[in-house]
Amino acid sequence: MLEQETASPSALERNLIERVCVGDVLARSADLHPDRVAIVDGPRRLRYADFDRQVDRLGHALLGLGLARQDVVAVMARNSIELLLSYFACARAGLVCAPVNLGLRPAEIAWCLRDAGARVLIVEAALSDTARSVLAEAIPSLAHRFQTGDEFDALIASASPEPLEVEIGDRDVVQLLYTSGTTSTPKGVLTSHLAVTMAGLSGALPLHGGPGYTALVALPLFHCAMLNGTVLPLMILGGTLVLTQGFEPRQAATLIESEGVHLMVLLPMMYGLLLADPALRRRSFPTMRRAMYAMAPMPHERLADIHAMFPNADVVLASGQTEFTPATCMQRPEHQWSKSATWGTATAMTRVAVMDEQGRLLPRGQSGELVYRGPQVMNGYLNMPDESLACLRHGWFHSGDVARIDEDGAIWFEDRFKDVIKTGGENVASVEVERCLMAHPEVAEAAVVGLPHPHWGEAITGVVVRRPGSGLDEATLMAHCGVRLAGFKAPKAIVFVAEFPRTGTGKLQKHLIRDQHKDCYQP
Amino acid sequence: MLEQETASPSALERNLIERVCVGDVLARSADLHPDRVAIVDGPRRLRYADFDRQVDRLGHALLGLGLARQDVVAVMARNSIELLLSYFACARAGLVCAPVNLGLRPAEIAWCLRDAGARVLIVEAALSDTARSVLAEAIPSLAHRFQTGDEFDALIASASPEPLEVEIGDRDVVQLLYTSGTTSTPKGVLTSHLAVTMAGLSGALPLHGGPGYTALVALPLFHCAMLNGTVLPLMILGGTLVLTQGFEPRQAATLIESEGVHLMVLLPMMYGLLLADPALRRRSFPTMRRAMYAMAPMPHERLADIHAMFPNADVVLASGQTEFTPATCMQRPEHQWSKSATWGTATAMTRVAVMDEQGRLLPRGQSGELVYRGPQVMNGYLNMPDESLACLRHGWFHSGDVARIDEDGAIWFEDRFKDVIKTGGENVASVEVERCLMAHPEVAEAAVVGLPHPHWGEAITGVVVRRPGSGLDEATLMAHCGVRLAGFKAPKAIVFVAEFPRTGTGKLQKHLIRDQHKDCYQP
Repeated sequence: MLEQETASPSALERNLIERVCVGDVLARSADLHPDRVAIVDGPRRLRYADFDRQVDRLGHALLGLGLARQDVVAVMARNSIELLLSYFACARAGLVCAPVNLGLRPAEIAWCLRDAGARVLIVEAALSDTARSVLAEAIPSLAHRFQTGDEFDALIASASPEPLEVEIGDRDVVQLLYTSGTTSTPKGVLTSHLAVTMAGLSGALPLHGGPGYTALVALPLFHCAMLNGTVLPLMILGGTLVLTQGFEPRQAATLIESEGVHLMVLLPMMYGLLLADPALRRRSFPTMRRAMYAMAPMPHERLADIHAMFPNADVVLASGQTEFTPATCMQRPEHQWSKSATWGTATAMTRVAVMDEQGRLLPRGQSGELVYRGPQVMNGYLNMPDESLACLRHGWFHSGDVARIDEDGAIWFEDRFKDVIKTGGENVASVEVERCLMAHPEVAEAAVVGLPHPHWGEAITGVVVRRPGSGLDEATLMAHCGVRLAGFKAPKAIVFVAEFPRTGTGKLQKHLIRDQHKDCYQP
Repeated sequence: MLEQETASPSALERNLIERVCVGDVLARSADLHPDRVAIVDGPRRLRYADFDRQVDRLGHALLGLGLARQDVVAVMARNSIELLLSYFACARAGLVCAPVNLGLRPAEIAWCLRDAGARVLIVEAALSDTARSVLAEAIPSLAHRFQTGDEFDALIASASPEPLEVEIGDRDVVQLLYTSGTTSTPKGVLTSHLAVTMAGLSGALPLHGGPGYTALVALPLFHCAMLNGTVLPLMILGGTLVLTQGFEPRQAATLIESEGVHLMVLLPMMYGLLLADPALRRRSFPTMRRAMYAMAPMPHERLADIHAMFPNADVVLASGQTEFTPATCMQRPEHQWSKSATWGTATAMTRVAVMDEQGRLLPRGQSGELVYRGPQVMNGYLNMPDESLACLRHGWFHSGDVARIDEDGAIWFEDRFKDVIKTGGENVASVEVERCLMAHPEVAEAAVVGLPHPHWGEAITGVVVRRPGSGLDEATLMAHCGVRLAGFKAPKAIVFVAEFPRTGTGKLQKHLIRDQHKDCYQP
């Protein structure tokens, strides 16, 4: 009888065998490549074996504080070994890691920590001033706080290096990332072990790298593009992550060369900085094989300059959102020139389609809302059941983006769904009108919104920041648009402003612009 | 109130968005590559779009028979479009597909169908005689039978081509494959959608192929190596599967050339047939990039010949078992020569370790039982709870193989656990003694077993088939071993036999050999 009982595996033993757990990614790579460098962080280099052991220690230490399954550990840190140790320790301990978006204002961060019910806060020593401002607000759930350096190191050293083995469900939450809130307050996105692991495998597929791949991690790790789209694929392949805190073009160039970087994901403006630096502009970096970019397509001239700098690299755009981590679509190498204006095609585990407002899928070539299916979808927004349900309709995840899909499966973005203007029975993409306004040499920035209008329903309205010193007037700019746009797409009015309302991470807040000018056409 | 209800997704809608389903692999590839050829089967070529539509139709048709979630559909067919249509239709309909192992004898097949409780049997027309023998036995669960050709085509044509959308759990069973039973009756291995999808992603990682990869599928699809290790990775990459029914070297060579095959998995003896064919031996096939092999390592001379035939290919061994589909380890290209005698290193989603009999993990270099962890593990054996539990102990899946892992993570197989002989306090790998016996020029085949012995516990015993015409005797062969093996490893007796007991698929049944000679040392 006793023998029968010992032969039968416990729920934990069974779980350890079959589960999908982000912490296991590190364990497998540490088995295979114990001596390979996993992370380069300034002068510090962390081998996989040591990474693995320290994650076990930190996981034990966090559980030793009395945390329960799925409790939240927030981390306020720039890209660093400490942030990744915390993330994988939480993953292995069944806790939820919430890397704080450092682009948010202290009051917003405090709001997020309260919303998350964070039990622990780990703070990078260099950010202790910001942390003080954050902690000036009440965060009742917070029971423990550790600062990187001696305090954090002691926490790790205090605990056992034995393998940390607790039960973890495939769909348990591993991370909580707050969106920066272009349309509302920040939303906490809950993402599962399964979603992140699928993101890792799917992201590793186009790397063709095998072991030894090296990536530059210059964008913040608190975004899913890095945390799930770069860290996981590289670790699955046993590669090396070279971290920087912010983007400085000469430092990036030095690291690309000294570490032999193969892969990076940058924003278009960062490529601009690399190309604009007189010390770098004629240099070439032959190790780079994938120079990826996010946010928006770049013109061919800019792409040609990037290719000249990285002569052995594919230069491809990836696009995604925190809610469907990290990339729903990516340009295939064979499309990097011919379809450079697209978002690329669906990634390996994502289905992409276009839907009308009645929930019907539309055939190739027709415009509608981009919708997705796949295991990389979030579990939901934290504490926002209505918002969670709102994006899960008709059996698809709703992106809020309007696009069409061409005969090669490439996705042509047209506008944010909320920014499409319905004017006199026509739908107009605000982006197209913005592009026309931006083409005027005296326009520094332009946002196009639809404002309530007694005749048109919504009237297309250009909100414009002039270049310094420009005396550009409404009539001139209207005339500029009149010869370039179809009549129904031309703005009905232009409003000049000094600056735009923006989120902490610098994204335009169109809902506030709409609000500020909503009475523009009222009699 | 009503609006609130319609806004809330049903369980099915939510499932469609987030699930892991083998049927969705096909849907994604059909979206991206509708016109690419998915399957080449003789003169027939099936495009992804048509594959996808026919799978929906067949799935609807199967459910239209009144089948319930997780009911079993058995398929008796050689490699064919029909087999793959059935597999993906079951996957999408939430049914379990059981491709029948055609190496089994009719009575064994009937046993498997009874064990599976199969509701439907789909039979290839050319196998109708075998099917008649199978169906001569009672299979009470079987309610429907379809033969390929007009009957099967009519079944498909009868149903709707609308997308088939039913709820499917990540861990629902998608396939039931029977092992060929080297140690017992066949065991039905239940494998989940998650396991097969992970197998697909993991298998696609080393292909570096991107879209357009073409694979030769010459081994039977009723084994996991093809069904999960070739079909899934290729379909994830939008590649083409070139099917053959059995292996005929000139046909294989013709297809490799005409279809531009990049990948294949063959048994060592099939490479032998390719190399031995006078019409082929000086030919070279430049499109091949991965010439994989299964079962056992090959000597360097044979590898050199294969490299000469496939000059642009990596020649690598993959190893696995149905219970942990399909490959737990695979040689990395950089090891194809230096570690050609190993099983390679762990695959991307598998953790491999070595354990002693007390459940302790052993350090690198020490011998013990190979144990695995990872989501590719089976759900369990059908109707065999004790056997299922027996291989899930101490938080690891027990492979029954004895091996050691070297400093590069490469796995050196030593013996099947059950074939390790415990003799006078020493453990001896039967494989090592067999290798010594086989080295004698007059030995055709050798099996080494431990038999009950009053003094030694188990006595190492050689069971040998002589070459035709040989008069080799026990004393000569004992002397041959005596100078080549340590004393405790040398056989205590040699028994000559005419032939060995084998399974339907030709594997040696050592348990029967042990049984036949168990009284060898009894006084």
